[in-house]
Amino acid sequence: MQNFTFQNPTRILFGEGRIADIAAEIPAGARVLITYGGGSVVRTGTLDEVKAALKNFTVFEFAGIEPNPTYETLMEAVALARREKVDFLLAVGGGSVIDGTKFIAAAIPFAGDPWDMLAKRAAVTRAIAFGSVLTLPATGSEMNNGAVITRRASSDKLAFLNDLLFPRFSVLDPSKTFTLPPRQVANGVVDAFVHIAEQYLTYPADAKVQDRFAEGLLLTLIEEGPRALREPENYAVRANLMWTATLALNGLIGAGVPQDWATHMLGHELTVLHGLDHAQTLAVVLPAMLQVQRAEKRDKLLQYAERVWGLREGDAEARIDQAIVRTRLFFESLQVPTRLSDYGIGVEAIAPLVAQLKRHGMVALGEHRSVDLARAQQVYELAA
Amino acid sequence: MQNFTFQNPTRILFGEGRIADIAAEIPAGARVLITYGGGSVVRTGTLDEVKAALKNFTVFEFAGIEPNPTYETLMEAVALARREKVDFLLAVGGGSVIDGTKFIAAAIPFAGDPWDMLAKRAAVTRAIAFGSVLTLPATGSEMNNGAVITRRASSDKLAFLNDLLFPRFSVLDPSKTFTLPPRQVANGVVDAFVHIAEQYLTYPADAKVQDRFAEGLLLTLIEEGPRALREPENYAVRANLMWTATLALNGLIGAGVPQDWATHMLGHELTVLHGLDHAQTLAVVLPAMLQVQRAEKRDKLLQYAERVWGLREGDAEARIDQAIVRTRLFFESLQVPTRLSDYGIGVEAIAPLVAQLKRHGMVALGEHRSVDLARAQQVYELAA
Repeated sequence: MQNFTFQNPTRILFGEGRIADIAAEIPAGARVLITYGGGSVVRTGTLDEVKAALKNFTVFEFAGIEPNPTYETLMEAVALARREKVDFLLAVGGGSVIDGTKFIAAAIPFAGDPWDMLAKRAAVTRAIAFGSVLTLPATGSEMNNGAVITRRASSDKLAFLNDLLFPRFSVLDPSKTFTLPPRQVANGVVDAFVHIAEQYLTYPADAKVQDRFAEGLLLTLIEEGPRALREPENYAVRANLMWTATLALNGLIGAGVPQDWATHMLGHELTVLHGLDHAQTLAVVLPAMLQVQRAEKRDKLLQYAERVWGLREGDAEARIDQAIVRTRLFFESLQVPTRLSDYGIGVEAIAPLVAQLKRHGMVALGEHRSVDLARAQQVYELAA
Repeated sequence: MQNFTFQNPTRILFGEGRIADIAAEIPAGARVLITYGGGSVVRTGTLDEVKAALKNFTVFEFAGIEPNPTYETLMEAVALARREKVDFLLAVGGGSVIDGTKFIAAAIPFAGDPWDMLAKRAAVTRAIAFGSVLTLPATGSEMNNGAVITRRASSDKLAFLNDLLFPRFSVLDPSKTFTLPPRQVANGVVDAFVHIAEQYLTYPADAKVQDRFAEGLLLTLIEEGPRALREPENYAVRANLMWTATLALNGLIGAGVPQDWATHMLGHELTVLHGLDHAQTLAVVLPAMLQVQRAEKRDKLLQYAERVWGLREGDAEARIDQAIVRTRLFFESLQVPTRLSDYGIGVEAIAPLVAQLKRHGMVALGEHRSVDLARAQQVYELAA
């Protein structure tokens, strides 16, 4: 096991009806800005439920945080929050809203252009406190300290991490996910699956617990993902998916082990240049990445084949092939296509994708820093 | 899944050499009281290493916290801490030292007799901040908010929990466990195993992740426990055991599921009246408890038989029997006997044990509150 530091202070309020408990988690007298995305939290009544819980606070609203939240939109929220002297933020939505709210929280007290926090890794030394009400299990943002922000003007999609950006609390009410469109449910399952893969499918580090936990989360996604699509109002299924997606990226399974994240980096460029959903990009890139990196990942791929897919018989290389095929088929069973061509993207798109990676400095990715631009190109080609 | 609230703010510094990092975790200028047990942390040099890391602090020492830490001893530390105006505690040792330090932390600012925090559930509203350097993986106290304290004068062994009693940080350096006596290593494995069992072997609650995590921890103990005895200086093995014992009781696998803890309550009386090590009591009680409660625990026992012991064939009742036998044999393989008679305790001891349970109000234990005094007696008899 590698040395690690682990701390995750986010308070999780899990279960049906927990929105009613949020007032006790916010400092009395706070001026609260509720942030959200499109109209779904309005239509489903979740926003009204949140506002009812906050009836003793001064509340402002900022709507319109988009999937792959943009700097351009978020800076409008920053202006509103500064103007109204907001001192607590409450994100109501999925990972994009929560990621965007993390940016707002750090940007409000930031001196200078907040984009520097991402592009120039400028130090984040203060942030406004915030909580979240999660409506879409997928990214894990509700219990971690990271965010990914897109700048439309320059086609950049960049991540930042800071310990000031853990939510103070997050409400996980599985019943709030009953009405999600199937595409979002499926995307969430794929997103969580690939988060786990990035922390698990690397090389052995004598970290038995982290491996078992990762495998347990993957098995749960494989069992519950398709059921969530078939039985959208099955509370137990939704509860398992919701807690799995949170634990997939809260620092626990990644503590003390090597991590990859090359699939995410290649995926980000697909979203920026072609507008694919984040999870769609992961479904496209991961199987190809595993194939291209199969020698480096051999031991863990064999373990994955056995413990996650039950493949114990026959030639080792064939088991690895089969595990990658099963991974692809699992994504496709959720109606998430896994080929660039399925999204109308031809091979001529690959050179510009690789050029974007180069521009973003993504020239030595993966747990061994061995995914250079040539390998990245191979991955895109294999995903064609 | 049941509704739950989960928050665990303890910062874990894991790995070889991490004692050197503790100074940064303690407020500058703090007056620090180092608490420890017998001479082992002196002999091994761990205490010197801690003091070297604290060279810029005013440091006091309190030695002599015993296994099953007593009110009587701990109140001496409280007096010292009050006299010297200590404002940070640092426990160096195993679960007993950390539990004892939690009591000291809460007792220092307590008005009245601190024993009331346990015996009368008096409100704990303040506590001195503290950290820990763990030298014995077993109880999980290094990352939870609970403690068990014994009062010698009245033969009481009682638990208390409070969110102010999470350590600010805990150092987990696996190499510090190389020199542990085999008996303590074995006890630690049994203790962690039974902590998991108390949260896992109850009844199904549609909590797939918690089940998978619990199973992953049990499998790791089964693989690594015997190896730690055979290869005491195998760092990877010690690291896996250490992280497993911490995760066995940090709130994670118990969130959203029913919990039992009857085995612990019956075990406490064995320690108080007969002086058995805590883990020895658990090794004696658990197999008998599973047998007596086998109807209530049937579904989970079958799952345990399959996923932890690989028992998939044959009659269900036989599989349950076999799983209980395997549990017992596992404890015995670690040289921890599982019968009262192995410790020289005869059947005449049972009535006084049951009387103690009655005196402590332990008359409706277990996840269904169905372990009454008659059942408790049955358990002790079966363990004879």
